[in-house]
Order: sequence, then C-alpha cells, then structure tokens
Amino acid sequence: MSTPQRRYDLPCTETPSAWYNIVADLPKPPPPPLDPRTGQPAGPELLAPIFPMALLQQEMSAEKWIDIPGAIIEAYNLYRPSPLIRATALEKALDTPARIYYKYEGVSPAGSHKPNTSIAQAYYNKQEGVTRISTETGAGQWGSALAYACSIFGIECMVYMVKVSFHQKPYRRSMMSTWGAECIPSPSNTTEVGRKILAEDPDCPGSLGIAISEALEDAVGREDTKYSLGSVLNHVLLHQTVIGLEAQKQMEMAGDEPDVVIGCHGGGSNYAGLVFPYIGDNITKGKDTRIVAVEPQACPTLTKGPLAYDYGDTAKMTPLMQMYTLGSGFIPPGIHAGGLRYHGAAPLTSHCISEGFSEAVAVPQLETFASAITFARSECIIPAPESAHAICAAVREANAAKEAGEERVILFNLSGHGHFDMAAYDAYLAGELTDHEHPEEAIGKSLETLPQVPGA
Amino acid sequence: MSTPQRRYDLPCTETPSAWYNIVADLPKPPPPPLDPRTGQPAGPELLAPIFPMALLQQEMSAEKWIDIPGAIIEAYNLYRPSPLIRATALEKALDTPARIYYKYEGVSPAGSHKPNTSIAQAYYNKQEGVTRISTETGAGQWGSALAYACSIFGIECMVYMVKVSFHQKPYRRSMMSTWGAECIPSPSNTTEVGRKILAEDPDCPGSLGIAISEALEDAVGREDTKYSLGSVLNHVLLHQTVIGLEAQKQMEMAGDEPDVVIGCHGGGSNYAGLVFPYIGDNITKGKDTRIVAVEPQACPTLTKGPLAYDYGDTAKMTPLMQMYTLGSGFIPPGIHAGGLRYHGAAPLTSHCISEGFSEAVAVPQLETFASAITFARSECIIPAPESAHAICAAVREANAAKEAGEERVILFNLSGHGHFDMAAYDAYLAGELTDHEHPEEAIGKSLETLPQVPGA
Repeated sequence: MSTPQRRYDLPCTETPSAWYNIVADLPKPPPPPLDPRTGQPAGPELLAPIFPMALLQQEMSAEKWIDIPGAIIEAYNLYRPSPLIRATALEKALDTPARIYYKYEGVSPAGSHKPNTSIAQAYYNKQEGVTRISTETGAGQWGSALAYACSIFGIECMVYMVKVSFHQKPYRRSMMSTWGAECIPSPSNTTEVGRKILAEDPDCPGSLGIAISEALEDAVGREDTKYSLGSVLNHVLLHQTVIGLEAQKQMEMAGDEPDVVIGCHGGGSNYAGLVFPYIGDNITKGKDTRIVAVEPQACPTLTKGPLAYDYGDTAKMTPLMQMYTLGSGFIPPGIHAGGLRYHGAAPLTSHCISEGFSEAVAVPQLETFASAITFARSECIIPAPESAHAICAAVREANAAKEAGEERVILFNLSGHGHFDMAAYDAYLAGELTDHEHPEEAIGKSLETLPQVPGA
Repeated sequence: MSTPQRRYDLPCTETPSAWYNIVADLPKPPPPPLDPRTGQPAGPELLAPIFPMALLQQEMSAEKWIDIPGAIIEAYNLYRPSPLIRATALEKALDTPARIYYKYEGVSPAGSHKPNTSIAQAYYNKQEGVTRISTETGAGQWGSALAYACSIFGIECMVYMVKVSFHQKPYRRSMMSTWGAECIPSPSNTTEVGRKILAEDPDCPGSLGIAISEALEDAVGREDTKYSLGSVLNHVLLHQTVIGLEAQKQMEMAGDEPDVVIGCHGGGSNYAGLVFPYIGDNITKGKDTRIVAVEPQACPTLTKGPLAYDYGDTAKMTPLMQMYTLGSGFIPPGIHAGGLRYHGAAPLTSHCISEGFSEAVAVPQLETFASAITFARSECIIPAPESAHAICAAVREANAAKEAGEERVILFNLSGHGHFDMAAYDAYLAGELTDHEHPEEAIGKSLETLPQVPGA
C-alpha cells in the first residue's frame, strides 16, 4: 500500500510485561522522604495505614524491572498498547522540516493516561482485602480513572474533587457516578480539614493540596479505607512507564529516533511515564536525547520554585518530600488545565530535573490554547488543556527546527482528550481567557510556609 | 503470554481498500427513489445540485466493490482499523454462556462511526471544488463528524442542530466550533422553512426532518454550497461497510463466528456498516447468521411504521424513497438517543428487513439505560445512548442463551461513546427518565401525511 503510514500500533501481546524503575539507573539516589516529626527517613510503617504493602514495596524498590501481574495486563488490554501517531497534518500546518510524533493516551475509557496506575493500584488494594478507596482529583481525570478501576475490581470509591473544577466540569462527576463512585466538591464539610478551610473562606475554590488532605483524613479515619494518589509518588510514576516503553518500540517501528521528548508536568506522572525510559537510555546507553517538562506559567513549580523538602498537601499530613515546590499553601489561579494546578512536583521528576537529566519550561495559557486549536484543526484530536502544554512546547520545537532549517524528531505525550473540557475551548474561542503573570508575590508569600526539617 | 486476549487489532495496513456495495448481491433490487412531481425514477440530475457527482455515482452504483482513495485511507488511519473487543467482563456480569464481541467505533476523534462517511464525503466534495457544506445533526454526532472531516480538507461547514439536542448537549457545538464549523439550533430563523415552523410553534423542539429541510434549503440557495447527509442514503451506508469488513477479519482472528449480529438503527448507517457484509455472506455463501436492527420504542419506525414511499425531510424537499416510515411530519418524544429520533429509515436497510434478511426489535428507554450502566461498570466504556440500544439487544440475547443453556456468539456495534451524553446518565441515575408508550395515536395521525405517489 502506498498510503503514508501515520499510526504505529503494537499488538496486545506486545504490552510491556514489566514496569521500568528509573531509581535503579540513577547515578545518585533521590533523597528519601522524611518523617516530619523526627527529620529521619520515613520507613514504610509511616505510610502503611494508607497504602497496601505491595505499593509501598514498589515505592521503596530499587529493582530495575517490576513484573506486571496478568490481571493488570488484561485490564490494560482494553486500551493498551496505545497508538503512536506521526503528526503529518500538524507538520504540514506548521510547514516545518521537523518530524513530530505523539503517543496518544486518550484512548483509555477515562480519556487519559491515569488508568495505567489506577488499575494497578485498585488491583493491589483488592489483593490485600481493601474494600473502599478515597482519593482527590483536580480536573477529574484522576477521579474518573480511579472510579473506572474500582469498578473493574469491585471496590467502593470516594473522590474529593477540587471545587473550581467540580463546577467547571460537571460531567466528570457524572462519569464517576456512572462507574458507581461518589464524588463531592472539595473543600467539603465531611472532613475536619474541609470544615476548617470553609470556616475561614466559604468561597475557597479548592486546590489539589486541600483535596489530598481531605482524602487522607477520610482514609486515616476508616478501617475499611485506603488512600490512592494519582501522581507524585514513585509507584505511580513507575506504573506510567508503560507509555515510554511502548513508545520506544513504536519509534523503532517508525524507523525514527526522537531528538527531543516532551511531557506536560503537573504532579509529573504522564511526563515521567513517557520520558523515564528515555532518560534511562541516556544514562545507561550514553544517548543524548533532550528531555523537556512543560508546566503552565500560572503555576511555575519547576521553573520558579526552589528544590526543598515540603509537604504534599495543604494540611501537612504527608511525609516531607524533596521536590520543586511553591509551598504547600500555594493556590494557583483557576486556569483550565486543572491537572497542572499543583504546588509541588514528584520527588523523582524533581530529582531528574535538578540532576540535569531534563529541561523544564513554562508556557502561557493563550499560546497553549492556540496550539491546541492548531492541533485540533490539523490532527483532529481535541486535546485536554493539560496535554496542550506538551503540544505548545512541541510546536515551539518545530518552529525552532524550521528557523534553524534542520530536521528534528519530536516526540510528545498527548496524555488525554478534551471531551470534558469543552467549556474551556468555548471561553478561549470567545476571547475570554487571559494569561496569568507569574505570581511572584504570591509565590514569595507562599514560600514562607516551607517547613523546617527537624535536625537539618 | 497466558493473559486471555480481549482485543483483536488489525494493523493499519489491513484497513479495507474497498467499500462493499450490498446492492450487487441482493436477489431483488431495491426500488428506486422517485421524482415526487412525476412519480418516475429520480435520475442523478435531480440530486446534482446538492451532491457531488462522485457520490451520486456511488448512490446509483451496482458494482460490488468500490475502491477507497488513498487520501481517505490515510485519514481513516488516525483511528482505523477500530478495535474488536471480546466483552469478557460483561459476560461475567451477566453470568452467560454466550460469547459477546463488540466492534468499537468510539475511537474516532468525533467519538462515533460517523467519520467513516464524513471523511469520504468531504474528500469527494473537495475533489469537485466545493468550498462549503451544509448539514443537519440530531444528537451532534454527525455534525461533529462532518466538522472534523471538513477541517481535514479545508472546507467551510454549516450545521443545523435539532434544538432539543442543541440545548441538551451544548458541548457538541463547542466541539464543532473547535474544528472551525458553525452550528445553530434548528428550527432557525435563517431559512424559510425554519421561519415558517417557528411562526407556527416558537417552542418547536425540532426534529431531524426539519433540520434536513433547513440544510437542504441552505445548499440549494447557494452556489458555493453542497449538502451532506449522515445516514439513510446508499452512499453513506456504503462508506460504513468498513466496520463490518474489518469485523469479519477480526472475528476470524478470534477464531469465532457470530450467531447473531446487532446494530442500533436510526437512519440505519451504523447498523448497515456492521451487518451488510454479514447479510452479503448469508446471500452469497449460504450462511445463516441472524441479523438484528434495534430501535427505541419511542420512535418505532421499523416495528410500527409501514413500508411506503415517503419524503426524507419535513418540508418534503427530497425525492420519494421507499422505506419504513412514521410519516415525515412525525416528531418523536425528546428521548436522549437523539440520533435515533428519525421518522424514516434507510431505503436499503428497509429493503433488507422487508425481504427477510434482518429482524427488527424496539426496546424501551429504561431497559436501555440499565444495559448501558451494566456495560459501563463491567466493560468500562461509557456508551452513547444510541449505541446502548444495541447493548440492550445483546444483553437480551445473552440472557436468552443462558436460559436455553446454550453457547451463542453475539457481535454488536458499539457505535460511539457517551462523553457528550453525561446529562442523560445523570437523569437516569436520578430516576428522572421514563419509558415512552408507543405513540399509536400520534403515529396514526402522522401517517395520514404520507404522500400520494403520482401515477401509482
């Protein structure tokens, strides 16, 4: 057939059979989480009340490959391997000599990469007899993904959804209900943390940090309930590496190798999922693929925050983790990329960036939506606003390649579709969106809340 | 690998290279469309003002195979071949000895099977220099699909959307805007037909018949504009046969053969797309696969309407076509499966049913949504309410197999996802939906409007 190929599909049998643990390949190990009371490394016992043991073992593991159980692969196979697509139409629209590829994770029933870990987490919880899981969600991608996974394994699911997103994206809640989960806006009056925040500010739009605190309180307070996190932690990033492992095989099918690999970065999980196997090859095989993390200018954790020990949540219930952070009290502007509105970043992605294995860049909201429209009108998939940040950086790379008159092979992660974000597109097309100046003052103030590490 | 396989994927290179034209295999040719002024068969000249010649040739063709141009295959390959999935989790939930498979068309960027024909139609219009296309849409699936296809080929797109759906599903319009199309609620005041209907009934909820009339008037009145229809016509059904052609290969991969093949039926295109290749095999290879069309009880065209010559639209602008019909003035209740709210049916599917090549069954709204929830909580994909009608019939077949204690292989078309139908799920879960009694009286009254064929 003479039709140019644009999609590189792997058969089900090529679904990765093990996750890749980058910790095994890092020259310098990432600093451990600390118990905030003692300043000493936090052992698994600190987190045992809220996570099943199998996940804690993965959290602490230094093994390079961790086998994926058959039941998880079976569930993955409803949508995995996900497609790798050559963006020929986008290349044409940009008139660039660059070759652009994207890995498309929106094919999952929840519409994003999140089920790669929610399925694994629900499975291990089920194995250890857990009957109910609590969690938080920003834009709703994670809550939907966990609701879906809990539905597979017959587990009750309770989701605290950041209030501004709950109202911006009401159909995300409908989706969770359809899968049998409960979803309420956060801050809520069902937890002490929520009640306290509402008493101080009844109109609080919520934040991921607050919602995490509520979900943690829920799990700590109930015997039948464990907690589940959709990003940030090592085991979550580990589960996402199926993305990059598949992409490497698919790029080989395409007979191409990326010069630059790009992921949008909120907590860090879709970014890590794609780029960790590439960073691994840079370290172990001496390759020099450029790696880029993209965040919104409105929440410039990686580009404006210091690398410091901080809490993962607003109520300071988590262990201290070393990460880029804007301070756990930081509440970013209500931009439409709700999944990127997080004060911190994964300790592992932070470590990779601080060690020089990855660049980080912040892009403004309007340029991001302009890229999303260019993409939708050429490649035809309507991207999630979060994923549009990766598109924005890819477009910049393609334009730079054109300017330099050089071929450049660009690979990015299209982590989800925008079917539940159409109000954001309406607002953009109606000219109602704005950029957000770097909130320097707000950042400075928020950073004053950074904790003192005992004994440091 | 010992993991049970549930997805059967074809590589891009196995995308069908020709569409299957069932007309070539039918023992008795379907009766021709008639010119309503003369009662004589309508030649291509009658439709030439509104359709490009290549599509009219396909409309009249008796060739068994019609080559698919490379540019269309290239566009198909963004999402085709679509997956065939073994519904192992649904089988378990139903505790049935039946083996259930579904072909999943929701993987297209517009979320349904509709792009299989919108891409082809936009392509042929582009080839003949058309710069603007008008159309109607019910629930928005078709309008989105045409907006998407027009975006690929750089054609302006104007969509008249049935008013009740326009308000039920506002984000379908956003989707069309994102792809650069214009979409307004029908009846509108931009056409004579629309103004006339609004003068009589300012609160008219609209219907597909009315929206078709408006889109036709738009196309007839402008030199630069052709019209495009998302179902009913022969060439539309032809383009959809890629679904069944792929499914046949995939069932072979699965080592199974369906006893019964099921599609939901509004205008008839997704049903025809899956079942026509199977009906063809029944005719030419002496197979005896059962074929089932499923419609809503609230709009029982196939099960309560007579087979008669009728207009395709409310304003009686189309040629007369022989089909099952409730009368072109029939306005069905505002059920959530907007894509199935059509007074008529495709002449070709009507012919197949009246000749005994297919059964037809009507299912009530509540049982349909109950099936959709069962499906969403087992298979995890949230189906469009239209597609849920096929699920409902498949569940009935699976239960019958259980009762009879027999294996039965069931194949149905999951024509689209329900991401833009979450309000319907909210209403169902809140107990706000009802069944609709067969509107016998309304049907009787509507049937009085059936046209007299001149000279008949």
